[in-house]
Amino acid sequence: MRKQKSVADSFVIMTELVLPNDTNTLNNLMGGRMMHLMDIAAAISAQKHSNRIVVTASVDNVSFRDSIRLGNVVTLQAQVTRAFSSSMEVHIDVWAEDIPSGTKLKTNEAFFTFVAVDQSGRPIDVPEAVPETPEEIALYDGALRRRQLRLVLAGRMQPGEASELKALFALE
Amino acid sequence: MRKQKSVADSFVIMTELVLPNDTNTLNNLMGGRMMHLMDIAAAISAQKHSNRIVVTASVDNVSFRDSIRLGNVVTLQAQVTRAFSSSMEVHIDVWAEDIPSGTKLKTNEAFFTFVAVDQSGRPIDVPEAVPETPEEIALYDGALRRRQLRLVLAGRMQPGEASELKALFALE
Amino acid sequence: MRKQKSVADSFVIMTELVLPNDTNTLNNLMGGRMMHLMDIAAAISAQKHSNRIVVTASVDNVSFRDSIRLGNVVTLQAQVTRAFSSSMEVHIDVWAEDIPSGTKLKTNEAFFTFVAVDQSGRPIDVPEAVPETPEEIALYDGALRRRQLRLVLAGRMQPGEASELKALFALE
Amino acid sequence: MRKQKSVADSFVIMTELVLPNDTNTLNNLMGGRMMHLMDIAAAISAQKHSNRIVVTASVDNVSFRDSIRLGNVVTLQAQVTRAFSSSMEVHIDVWAEDIPSGTKLKTNEAFFTFVAVDQSGRPIDVPEAVPETPEEIALYDGALRRRQLRLVLAGRMQPGEASELKALFALE
Amino acid sequence: MRKQKSVADSFVIMTELVLPNDTNTLNNLMGGRMMHLMDIAAAISAQKHSNRIVVTASVDNVSFRDSIRLGNVVTLQAQVTRAFSSSMEVHIDVWAEDIPSGTKLKTNEAFFTFVAVDQSGRPIDVPEAVPETPEEIALYDGALRRRQLRLVLAGRMQPGEASELKALFALE
Amino acid sequence: MRKQKSVADSFVIMTELVLPNDTNTLNNLMGGRMMHLMDIAAAISAQKHSNRIVVTASVDNVSFRDSIRLGNVVTLQAQVTRAFSSSMEVHIDVWAEDIPSGTKLKTNEAFFTFVAVDQSGRPIDVPEAVPETPEEIALYDGALRRRQLRLVLAGRMQPGEASELKALFALE
Repeated sequence: MRKQKSVADSFVIMTELVLPNDTNTLNNLMGGRMMHLMDIAAAISAQKHSNRIVVTASVDNVSFRDSIRLGNVVTLQAQVTRAFSSSMEVHIDVWAEDIPSGTKLKTNEAFFTFVAVDQSGRPIDVPEAVPETPEEIALYDGALRRRQLRLVLAGRMQPGEASELKALFALE
Repeated sequence: MRKQKSVADSFVIMTELVLPNDTNTLNNLMGGRMMHLMDIAAAISAQKHSNRIVVTASVDNVSFRDSIRLGNVVTLQAQVTRAFSSSMEVHIDVWAEDIPSGTKLKTNEAFFTFVAVDQSGRPIDVPEAVPETPEEIALYDGALRRRQLRLVLAGRMQPGEASELKALFALE
Repeated sequence: MRKQKSVADSFVIMTELVLPNDTNTLNNLMGGRMMHLMDIAAAISAQKHSNRIVVTASVDNVSFRDSIRLGNVVTLQAQVTRAFSSSMEVHIDVWAEDIPSGTKLKTNEAFFTFVAVDQSGRPIDVPEAVPETPEEIALYDGALRRRQLRLVLAGRMQPGEASELKALFALE
Repeated sequence: MRKQKSVADSFVIMTELVLPNDTNTLNNLMGGRMMHLMDIAAAISAQKHSNRIVVTASVDNVSFRDSIRLGNVVTLQAQVTRAFSSSMEVHIDVWAEDIPSGTKLKTNEAFFTFVAVDQSGRPIDVPEAVPETPEEIALYDGALRRRQLRLVLAGRMQPGEASELKALFALE
Repeated sequence: MRKQKSVADSFVIMTELVLPNDTNTLNNLMGGRMMHLMDIAAAISAQKHSNRIVVTASVDNVSFRDSIRLGNVVTLQAQVTRAFSSSMEVHIDVWAEDIPSGTKLKTNEAFFTFVAVDQSGRPIDVPEAVPETPEEIALYDGALRRRQLRLVLAGRMQPGEASELKALFALE
Repeated sequence: MRKQKSVADSFVIMTELVLPNDTNTLNNLMGGRMMHLMDIAAAISAQKHSNRIVVTASVDNVSFRDSIRLGNVVTLQAQVTRAFSSSMEVHIDVWAEDIPSGTKLKTNEAFFTFVAVDQSGRPIDVPEAVPETPEEIALYDGALRRRQLRLVLAGRMQPGEASELKALFALE
């Protein structure tokens, strides 16, 4: 039987200071640099769940509403939501904090998917991810729907087969 | 009347060499570093269309199928597909090339959205983007559907109102 | 009366992946790069306590026993131990984890001191730091002794006046 | 017979955004950072011609007349001009663009020479480079003269033997 | 008999320009970046003495009194003070210079300790370090006392056994 | 009368460790990274002579004969050779050292030219540079010839007027 592991074991907190080279000419953190931080935090989370080297398989839609300034402190929290055979979905929450002015804002939320690989880069099975809190269970349940959306968007599943997606679009 | 500009004017080619710090312990380019490159190429394209400073508004689902190795040459091509009032969708194609072995592979494709802003960071209108070739027209036409998907995923549009999306999921 | 703040409010967790440029020719994390990470984690902690820009005032003796490898995950935890008028002592614990092999080791422990400054760089008073747990109280109590040692080592206090230090060296 | 390859096959476009760490205290791109970008663009061009790992052999005189600002977009175009047994001369043109103000300037032009090497770092023959357009032919023809100048400046050729150079200095 | 080497043979000068990414929001060099530079300069000095790969073993208390500005030139001078079996203590002096304004200040002084290792990372004996000038002899003589302080602070020596330290604290 | 300054006052030593991101896939230092280091060392030297902000004006032909390896120590020595009204020529010597194997090689030699500028970036006069040793005098004397070569190569002087160059090519 497949090994089981609590999703909470994959929890990672990463804290970063926004440095000049991370910013554009308005002194705001560039979106691509933020995705880079998210990818590292999420990869460490997926490593913790699988005890394997992991490679990024996909990134879901990410939106950037708020500008994050030079000198701000960025906090990322990443945790595996669900594991499929060799892949894991990771959920990431991001806050930006301007400490001297005392403001703190949730700026982003994202889902990254990773595949665990062996030393030759071949996919390898990972433990089952077991959710425990209500929030973890909700993320676990939604993972199937997001996975179908990814497959449809990548042209690897027919929309008609994506039964979970219909719920998302409330079409029936 | 709003100024018009050919989408071809925003075409950008970026070429990068994969350096050690861009790679994981398998010597493969990390996904987050790739997103960082895509964001810079796409931002330059959006700048060219709008002649403005631009900020990343969102990134659509990106998938990573192929590993890109240390020393590979990565080529990114970015071009605006369509402009809405102050925002622009940019399409990016990515190829990775292992020059000594003579292999070249299309590894990624992505859509980034940017907002043009003035010096104070406030959104400002951009020229209309005019597609000319059949491929440009197809990307222009799909932009509305992708925009609805982004709005639904961000919780800012009800799925029922997303008329274009129904076509995507072939539901009617 | 001076404002009081719990030391726990300044708690910071930082997680970093060891990248190629952080390592020497044996693929081990360089000591100076580790100090750089410690300084950033500790500075964020001191910022959180003081809600001010902070500058590094001193670093106590740090020792490096264990080698940390390329690809390892480094976790730093920083928390203010005690505040003097405009300065704060921060305690940092560091763990290194080789996730694929499942090993995790506490590799370093350090004390950094920061001064809170205003926009012109002048020192400015900070809230009192209130310890609560037995471990926090022990760190709070030891802060005075460490401060005397710093002053003696910097030639700004006569050893004879360093009453707390005598306890450290158990000389009486 | 030696393999032939059109010089156009080695054409490379590289686009870069000037970031804070690339600039001096006047917010202008540092000359050395520009040389670094030129070297990467030119090396990729030489790789494309030779399908080999290449190493920089020499850089001809480069002059810097115009300042390039933080946030500017730098575009480099590199193409092999001529191949000698294991070495290739690459021509690089550089433009800097301040997109919001709509100014674009050709700022530099340079010639780099590379040697193709095998996995042990030993020089290895490359295909002949065949120019086609009038501009490519002019660059091809001038390559011999520039090569003589390099050899004279490196003390590896007597000026008296540098027959092509005499034309450059119009001395006869 | 153990090989002898003059401490002067390990003398290293390093000069660095303070770049944007090295600075905080007040445009001052961050303390951790300074420690990083010190570590590299001192490691090169220890390499020169031992002709071995070296790893950082410890850093003594360092204090930061003066702010070093963006664009300043930092000069580090490092030299081995004394060698123990496989370890070496290195003394580092740091100056910061604002060249346009003509100010130059000694900003830091530090002691780093390194261990020489073989290709497998195992400690290996180094030559004896022979001081010659009065200043070198004073640093050599003090090295034993600093070593005892390090051992006491690391909990690896009882204060009662640290005979040299008593002199430091003038306790007898 | 114009202020005079000894060329020796502009002497700069820079020492750098070759890190992974500085190298190509053969683990050799890339030429462009070397030019970057040369530019910084030479700029500091020109700053010291002029006590001004300086900008790179040109780089003379540089050749790269020897490969410099990951982990090598690179030492650069830069010194002004001669000053013209607002410009200064700087001579740079570079050595690479593989300390564990005990090999040290002079790998490069170069001439960079800088212009001193005021806070608005306008050229400003610099002190006269006075050579003292025979080597300094030889470099001073050659500076005029190298300057003519730069002007001819930049198309800003007719070869016929370049009286000093004739000596270089021993044509009369």
